[in-house]
Amino acid sequence: MAKYKMILDLDTGVDDALALAYALATPECDLIGVVASFGNIVPEEAAQNTLNLLEMLGHPEVPVFIGATHSSHTDHFEVMPISQTIHGMNGVGNVELPTAKRKIESQNGIDFYIEAAHKYQGQLLIVPTGPLTNLAAAIEKDPEIIDLIGHVTLMGGALTVPGNVNPVTEANINQDPPAADQVLRSKLPLTMVGLDVTLRTLLTKKETQKWREIGTTSATKYADIVDYYINAYKITSPHLHGCGLHDPLAVAAAVDPSLLQTIYLNMKVDTEGAYAGRTIGDEKRLNEPATTTQVAVNVDVPRFLDMFMTKLSVFFKEH
Amino acid sequence: MAKYKMILDLDTGVDDALALAYALATPECDLIGVVASFGNIVPEEAAQNTLNLLEMLGHPEVPVFIGATHSSHTDHFEVMPISQTIHGMNGVGNVELPTAKRKIESQNGIDFYIEAAHKYQGQLLIVPTGPLTNLAAAIEKDPEIIDLIGHVTLMGGALTVPGNVNPVTEANINQDPPAADQVLRSKLPLTMVGLDVTLRTLLTKKETQKWREIGTTSATKYADIVDYYINAYKITSPHLHGCGLHDPLAVAAAVDPSLLQTIYLNMKVDTEGAYAGRTIGDEKRLNEPATTTQVAVNVDVPRFLDMFMTKLSVFFKEH
Repeated sequence: MAKYKMILDLDTGVDDALALAYALATPECDLIGVVASFGNIVPEEAAQNTLNLLEMLGHPEVPVFIGATHSSHTDHFEVMPISQTIHGMNGVGNVELPTAKRKIESQNGIDFYIEAAHKYQGQLLIVPTGPLTNLAAAIEKDPEIIDLIGHVTLMGGALTVPGNVNPVTEANINQDPPAADQVLRSKLPLTMVGLDVTLRTLLTKKETQKWREIGTTSATKYADIVDYYINAYKITSPHLHGCGLHDPLAVAAAVDPSLLQTIYLNMKVDTEGAYAGRTIGDEKRLNEPATTTQVAVNVDVPRFLDMFMTKLSVFFKEH
Repeated sequence: MAKYKMILDLDTGVDDALALAYALATPECDLIGVVASFGNIVPEEAAQNTLNLLEMLGHPEVPVFIGATHSSHTDHFEVMPISQTIHGMNGVGNVELPTAKRKIESQNGIDFYIEAAHKYQGQLLIVPTGPLTNLAAAIEKDPEIIDLIGHVTLMGGALTVPGNVNPVTEANINQDPPAADQVLRSKLPLTMVGLDVTLRTLLTKKETQKWREIGTTSATKYADIVDYYINAYKITSPHLHGCGLHDPLAVAAAVDPSLLQTIYLNMKVDTEGAYAGRTIGDEKRLNEPATTTQVAVNVDVPRFLDMFMTKLSVFFKEH
């Protein structure tokens, strides 16, 4: 029986697609739903990509919700050109996926969060891999859930390394700094999995070639999707020699925190001016005990890459 | 017999004065010399302040050198108004000290570094608490010393918290970002003791009052000097409710590294533009082994404060 109930909050997105597959391939976690967010793509397309992937991966039973359709401080959302470069115009590397039969749920993703927090309490793991708008809205609407949720393991931010949108700001946090500030300043039991660690876990075409050799639909489609992403990384981050496994690392660390070295730190997010979107220690709470917020500063790279490849290879063979 | 030979590189400076007293009060370390730097004050005054303090503290045998008189990328140095506010016009809280008999050495501080590195090798601890100009010049002039020096424990920078000159830059690094970049990128065995930890170790007038009660010249002068600093902190950083023990923490950690929690990270310093002076992980060396550069991310505050007060109280009683 699954130990955890997991909600993914995805702006699907290539590495979001990997996070989804990783969660489905992890028996310790029961994926009870996905909340689709704006970010790499508009939320409706993120939701549709997620439904299509779920059906292809043999899990049409997982419901997909839409949360906020734009950031907490704007009234609309437009996909950034750099997102289209990295994830493709359709979010999944311009790879065509069969359209799922299942439709997007009518319940709002924010209400789904609140309902699940009350129902599953400490068993509930939330893994947001896009903007933190939905989670911020949920704790704003029902602050009680801060004490109910088991753990939040989010992909976003950069504490000890530069950002990827500009030298101080990471892409997910950049989409909605005030929402990220609200989440990071809250007392949610939380681990920030930022570029500090995700840029150390790299995938190359050597690995996607192994998926191709499996030959199933899911293995081939995922190889196509990720190869697009690796090609984009060659242009945007040639020094890396691979693509960052941002979102799947967050899922893996949610289930097995021992993959990470973390530090406890009271965090904040700069919300305006030249440093908007920067995730940094809160100098005004430096001398208050830091007991709920952890930031990942290192990762067991070989163990994660081995787990990642083993889990996904077995899973793709079956689908 | 002293276990270590120590060189302090001070821009004396109130907390530099505390670092000096702490080093003299630490029997495990034999202070073989002080290199005076520009920074809180001009180098000639930093050197004179150091000589005056050494004589008052009963250690006129320690030689004082002058190193670089300005940063590696400028041709002159002027004290910043904020330095005068924090450290006083004379660098030591506008407190008058008796003029020492001993004079400044004629040998350049950079050559003293090189000579000491060859002589003491692994036994040599270097603790720079100002700009890194002298150390950068020394490793530039004789790169061999990189492999000879025992350890460098520097006070400067801010990795996980905002800067104190601007939101990304700490004052010591700000004086000479290219020199700091050279030192942090080098293979020197190095620990960065930045605002991340030094703003957690705070002194208040409760502690300086204890020195006053000792009644010796050194205790009273140090209480006067540090009270000026605490008053300045009330204006510049009212949320702290005390003054940061920046420089003495670096000395303490050089001798007893177990005071700190550190992470290993390949570091760089941004040298130009909006982020000049920022100390941050080097994204281009994130996946190279990090084996020589450590950054302090937490400190055993009660143990350090107890050591600090015990050592200095005993020491001031004798002088």
